[in-house]
Amino acid sequence: MSLKKPLILVTNDDGINAPGLRTLIKIMNTIGEVYVVAPDSPQSGMGHAITINDTLYCNKIKVAEHEPQTEYSCSGTPADCVKIAVNEILKRKPDLCVSGINHGSNSSINVIYSGTMSAAVEAGTQGIPSIGFSLLDYSLDADFEPSEKHIKNIVTQYLEKGLQKGVVLNVNIPKLPEQEIKGIKVCRQAKGYWAEEFDKRTNPLGRDYYWLTGKFVNEDQGEDTDEWALENGYVSVVPVQFDLTAHHVIKDINTWEL
Amino acid sequence: MSLKKPLILVTNDDGINAPGLRTLIKIMNTIGEVYVVAPDSPQSGMGHAITINDTLYCNKIKVAEHEPQTEYSCSGTPADCVKIAVNEILKRKPDLCVSGINHGSNSSINVIYSGTMSAAVEAGTQGIPSIGFSLLDYSLDADFEPSEKHIKNIVTQYLEKGLQKGVVLNVNIPKLPEQEIKGIKVCRQAKGYWAEEFDKRTNPLGRDYYWLTGKFVNEDQGEDTDEWALENGYVSVVPVQFDLTAHHVIKDINTWEL
Repeated sequence: MSLKKPLILVTNDDGINAPGLRTLIKIMNTIGEVYVVAPDSPQSGMGHAITINDTLYCNKIKVAEHEPQTEYSCSGTPADCVKIAVNEILKRKPDLCVSGINHGSNSSINVIYSGTMSAAVEAGTQGIPSIGFSLLDYSLDADFEPSEKHIKNIVTQYLEKGLQKGVVLNVNIPKLPEQEIKGIKVCRQAKGYWAEEFDKRTNPLGRDYYWLTGKFVNEDQGEDTDEWALENGYVSVVPVQFDLTAHHVIKDINTWEL
Repeated sequence: MSLKKPLILVTNDDGINAPGLRTLIKIMNTIGEVYVVAPDSPQSGMGHAITINDTLYCNKIKVAEHEPQTEYSCSGTPADCVKIAVNEILKRKPDLCVSGINHGSNSSINVIYSGTMSAAVEAGTQGIPSIGFSLLDYSLDADFEPSEKHIKNIVTQYLEKGLQKGVVLNVNIPKLPEQEIKGIKVCRQAKGYWAEEFDKRTNPLGRDYYWLTGKFVNEDQGEDTDEWALENGYVSVVPVQFDLTAHHVIKDINTWEL
């Protein structure tokens, strides 16, 4: 790490007031100069949505009087927050973008629905080293303390060692007391999907509507996956890329009569 | 292809009334039994957003009196449309899901922002063969006719030959007259990103706001990419997977002191 303090962009998808974001800011304040640009309202499940048919508002705010970070609240999605931070707010390209700590898992296939990870991926497309952090606890009063030393460890190593351009990290932390977390495992994304169950109801006007519910199905028995790591008490670290090409399939399609 | 007509789910992100969707329905009616479940309003740039904090409405409608397809208009995102179609509307798992024809490109990095491709990927996570189609013309009165025979060709080959589970296709079609389209190329996703430029304005109440604009930067000089194919008059076909793991980087991170 250079002697100069790294410039760190902090964002999330649970919104500027989420306790997970506050914990991440606290940790980052011990490492670098912190700018927060986060959604003004919860944006869970927003995937990589961006705002192209609407306006964006961005307000400088002071959430915590005695804390050193600079904060902005933004009307857009997590990906919008990163775009506007990098292009309009920060004085230079940040040395690191961290997103989270998400209230809830972003392991396995959840990476594609996750606003937290989309913010990290968006920073990655701009060439910025980037990490999304999630704790496997959906509750608003989740205990983020056991996560802290692991987050600091991963961020410090990332800043020291670096990673090739085009790769960001997806870090998930099990919901366990500090002494029960066994360590950190570098993993691949488990093969899984959501089996949906829609909760069908009738509104007071007699019109049917649905709530999306569902349960996650892990189809992957591998012991090198994020699901395995989390189930066995480890923090999972999955390197994530955004070249979605299934390179190994190109030769198969080239046998088609196109 | 079996003798039984394939069951085809058609969706998009430009909304149920978009001309691109109408063209895709027309082509699919020549191939199989068609169910349309599409957003009731434009959902461009929605990425893989899903609706988890709001209700979903879904109405059976009749858009074109003398056409054979069954149609539903849904209040959700493209990914929601696929989930609700598969779980609540269709009598069985469809043999194919097609999304589009999008008004505008989904090549290169656009795949991660695209509602069109997210619908296709969502179907893919459910084990359904799936293709997203996009025409490189944003205008509402784009000419979809030159696309038709290529779409029919690709869909027919896909149904006949099949592809391994976990892979869907991202098809982009250049904006060219029929005789100038040179053919179809199977490609990888070009490395590119969006260099954003925010258009800052002041509203009538004196408050600043932004419009997201920007220009696409292609950093990739390869001649095996979708960008190259499209610039050179070919339809591009990129096989897309949703295991985002950067497998080749796992060994690098394992050298960190974690």
